[in-house]
Amino acid sequence: MMSYSVKIDVKPIGYVKTEAVGKEVRDRSHVSQIVFRKELAEALEGIQGFSHIFILFWLHRIGEKERGTMKVHPRGREDMPLLGVFATRTPHRPNPIGLTRVKLLGVEGNVVTVQGLDAFDGTPVLDVKPFDFWDTTEGFTVPEWWMKLEKERLQRKKERQ
Amino acid sequence: MMSYSVKIDVKPIGYVKTEAVGKEVRDRSHVSQIVFRKELAEALEGIQGFSHIFILFWLHRIGEKERGTMKVHPRGREDMPLLGVFATRTPHRPNPIGLTRVKLLGVEGNVVTVQGLDAFDGTPVLDVKPFDFWDTTEGFTVPEWWMKLEKERLQRKKERQ
Repeated sequence: MMSYSVKIDVKPIGYVKTEAVGKEVRDRSHVSQIVFRKELAEALEGIQGFSHIFILFWLHRIGEKERGTMKVHPRGREDMPLLGVFATRTPHRPNPIGLTRVKLLGVEGNVVTVQGLDAFDGTPVLDVKPFDFWDTTEGFTVPEWWMKLEKERLQRKKERQ
Repeated sequence: MMSYSVKIDVKPIGYVKTEAVGKEVRDRSHVSQIVFRKELAEALEGIQGFSHIFILFWLHRIGEKERGTMKVHPRGREDMPLLGVFATRTPHRPNPIGLTRVKLLGVEGNVVTVQGLDAFDGTPVLDVKPFDFWDTTEGFTVPEWWMKLEKERLQRKKERQ
């Protein structure tokens, strides 16, 4: 059994740099940069061999009140079921850590350029990870509400084309 | 531009409970439990609709020295290239946060049973996330060394059958 008093000291390894604001950061084609601490540049060596990487970041705009949220409607939509925050990707969660799989476009020194990172300018980055064997997708199932949102998303995408 | 002095206060939402020790935790069939803080039980509602979820956890056995590691050979193998830690899933990284996709077996009150979590008994859990649209796998590419390790893994699996 663990003690909840274990010290967890997380320090940013870099931060997000983007000109996108508001909803623009959620555009899948959105290109942004991650500027790493200069001394960490060598820890990036070999990452360009991956087409996609995971970015873990700290949602620094989320306050204490939001961190106490227990239930939400996905995407704030009242027609969706009321769900526990751990069943959704809401930023309102006890530890507001964002996790996004992005496309890796390039690496130059301590700067990594990515596509599809839904994080605001100045967001602290906590970790960057390539795929592990265990991340490769086997069959998986999702709830009905998830499929409904996904179908709507694909429909909107089709209409834009 | 962000300041690196931003305060990041991460608190465990629960911890891992398992009887597996040492290398046993890396067995893909390994079943363990996540015991959540009691007050967070309602934040789990609806999670059972997903077959797989991501677990973010704090690798509490990693010390300051390991956190300063810049380069490693994947899996400690000298026949693999020497790579920056961000190009690998080594636990030796500036912020030792583990990320594993697991199979969700069941939820009972504040206890979630999962398969495939490579974390030791007592490991603090930071977050739990279901799939987002963006996690679904499109085509992706990985380096040659990655493919070599994956081929070896599949070969070993075949030999065991």
